[in-house]
Amino acid sequence: MKVNGSSFRTVWIEGNTVRMIDQTRLPHFFEIVDMPTHRETANAITEMTVRGAGAIGATGGYGMAQVVLEAPDDAGFYDYIEKGTETLAKTRPTAQNLFYAIEKVKAAIYKPDTISAARDLAVEMAQAIADEDAAFCESIGRMGAELITDGARILTHCNAGWLAFVDWGSALAPIYWAHRNSLKIFVFADETRPRGQGASLTAWELMNEGIPFNIIPDNASGYLMRKGEIDMVIVGSDRIAANGDVANKIGTYEKAVLAHELGIPFYVAAPSSTIDPKCMNGDLIPIEERSQDEVLYAHGLLDNGELGRVRLAPAGASARNLAFDVTPACYIKGIITENGIFSPAQITDSIIRTE
Amino acid sequence: MKVNGSSFRTVWIEGNTVRMIDQTRLPHFFEIVDMPTHRETANAITEMTVRGAGAIGATGGYGMAQVVLEAPDDAGFYDYIEKGTETLAKTRPTAQNLFYAIEKVKAAIYKPDTISAARDLAVEMAQAIADEDAAFCESIGRMGAELITDGARILTHCNAGWLAFVDWGSALAPIYWAHRNSLKIFVFADETRPRGQGASLTAWELMNEGIPFNIIPDNASGYLMRKGEIDMVIVGSDRIAANGDVANKIGTYEKAVLAHELGIPFYVAAPSSTIDPKCMNGDLIPIEERSQDEVLYAHGLLDNGELGRVRLAPAGASARNLAFDVTPACYIKGIITENGIFSPAQITDSIIRTE
Repeated sequence: MKVNGSSFRTVWIEGNTVRMIDQTRLPHFFEIVDMPTHRETANAITEMTVRGAGAIGATGGYGMAQVVLEAPDDAGFYDYIEKGTETLAKTRPTAQNLFYAIEKVKAAIYKPDTISAARDLAVEMAQAIADEDAAFCESIGRMGAELITDGARILTHCNAGWLAFVDWGSALAPIYWAHRNSLKIFVFADETRPRGQGASLTAWELMNEGIPFNIIPDNASGYLMRKGEIDMVIVGSDRIAANGDVANKIGTYEKAVLAHELGIPFYVAAPSSTIDPKCMNGDLIPIEERSQDEVLYAHGLLDNGELGRVRLAPAGASARNLAFDVTPACYIKGIITENGIFSPAQITDSIIRTE
Repeated sequence: MKVNGSSFRTVWIEGNTVRMIDQTRLPHFFEIVDMPTHRETANAITEMTVRGAGAIGATGGYGMAQVVLEAPDDAGFYDYIEKGTETLAKTRPTAQNLFYAIEKVKAAIYKPDTISAARDLAVEMAQAIADEDAAFCESIGRMGAELITDGARILTHCNAGWLAFVDWGSALAPIYWAHRNSLKIFVFADETRPRGQGASLTAWELMNEGIPFNIIPDNASGYLMRKGEIDMVIVGSDRIAANGDVANKIGTYEKAVLAHELGIPFYVAAPSSTIDPKCMNGDLIPIEERSQDEVLYAHGLLDNGELGRVRLAPAGASARNLAFDVTPACYIKGIITENGIFSPAQITDSIIRTE
């Protein structure tokens, strides 16, 4: 994607250093931050400096490459790999792409005969994962754009744009593709409390792409659907179970039920790496619970131009903060992957055929 | 209600001055503010210094009393009344209680022969409206408490507690009544963006009453319902149409559809003054659209201990801010009024019988 005329990916590697756009400072400040070791990279995932299914995956892959680059040239090599794997794998529990990337890089290093060759291969594999993510998302854009008609008013939840991947994004990729092909589109971006990725990141991306939009409170999308102001819904996913159930940002389930009730098509866009064939159904997907402070406070730009926060709740109040929810397959009209658009049942069939 | 050991109502009149709890400074500061004339009182409604269906109604009644007290002792008396009525009526378009109270006070002043007697009667009528609101809400509490079982986990949206009325509240009144009768209750309070009345006002009331609760993002209540963690939903209302459709805070419709989908009982609690027999169905209820800044910013307590705000969205972003939505009668299990619990169809029947 282009920012201020320069091309960027969300995350990349230079030498031993992982570099990324600091998503905790967007949309107010655009800054690149460096993670010199896999520990800083793991911390960047936990602290959500980088977030979003594909971006977490690519970062996990690069983090594993760092582990391999950092590991000692002796008998401690594989021990360091195991410990590094553990550090990276425990950063965020829900995103399937993270485990996919970690496993792919880890598998690669057992192939060559020398440690030096293993290091090269780890970096190559991490790079290939990031490149594949970008290519798959572009393909999702091309496939998904065929669902979009001129004048469509599209609801999206959270941020499944290029900031959530290496490039292009999942839910927003079809919108970008259609827009670049001159279709008129209007986007409703759910604010997406508690972290507000819709109001901050999706809004910032859409402005950057020149696509008209309104930010709406999460409370408003159902009623706008009922008033006939929304033609379709596209969201991303952090993990898709074998039965087609979809884990995504908290609130996705509500939007899916409402779209279903009102006969509005509800699509999930995700690269096939998001599918977890070993997970039989959505109830088995681990759902991360995050700090209640994310609910009790809101973060943003203070009137003095610095980043800060306001406390929303009275002192002593407690909150519950489930980061994701699960949408049963029955509410999902189609899943847009790099290979085409499938019903949840077709996803299940393809897993059965592969096994 | 009691705050720091003293009894308060949300709004009251002393001489010519309307006094109220400043709800824009809660939950962080508890302060009483004075409105010396009906113009300041009208402004307090618009600016949401006072908000909530019943509290708006009572304030509108007191504001009309101020109009009558302020009106000149000559031929200009009735002209001043008309202008004052207009000022108060245009403050908030959705709350039925506002129009109910304004009309009741206005009707009263045409009864006596002297302007002096009209002034007395206007104040008496405004006082009677406020007293009735408190009495009706207490009755709603007693009626509604019969629906609540020991151990119940109850979801509520926005603030329909005593801050939204003169005392007791509507949706929270049954919870307070049950709690005072030693039932164990746990409340999930929807944060209720954009203005966050759940995270601020409902949380503050529940802490004050000693009832355990969690604040949750508006995005989370559907999923908690699906996980079996919510036994019933009780919300308030700003206007009930003759067919039983209910206008309430934006997001109510979403919760009602989800509760219906999952077989969880969804109740609306409101005094009968909320029913608008002239409004045939919910689509005819005017829905207020408020400033997009309410969506683009969040307000609360800064780390320095002062009230302030943070900007959530990038500069130049636009938002849509519907303050209310309409929930069709088919999603509503019962409407709790001061006279008992009725199905939407029974509400319609009683209107037909009255006409």
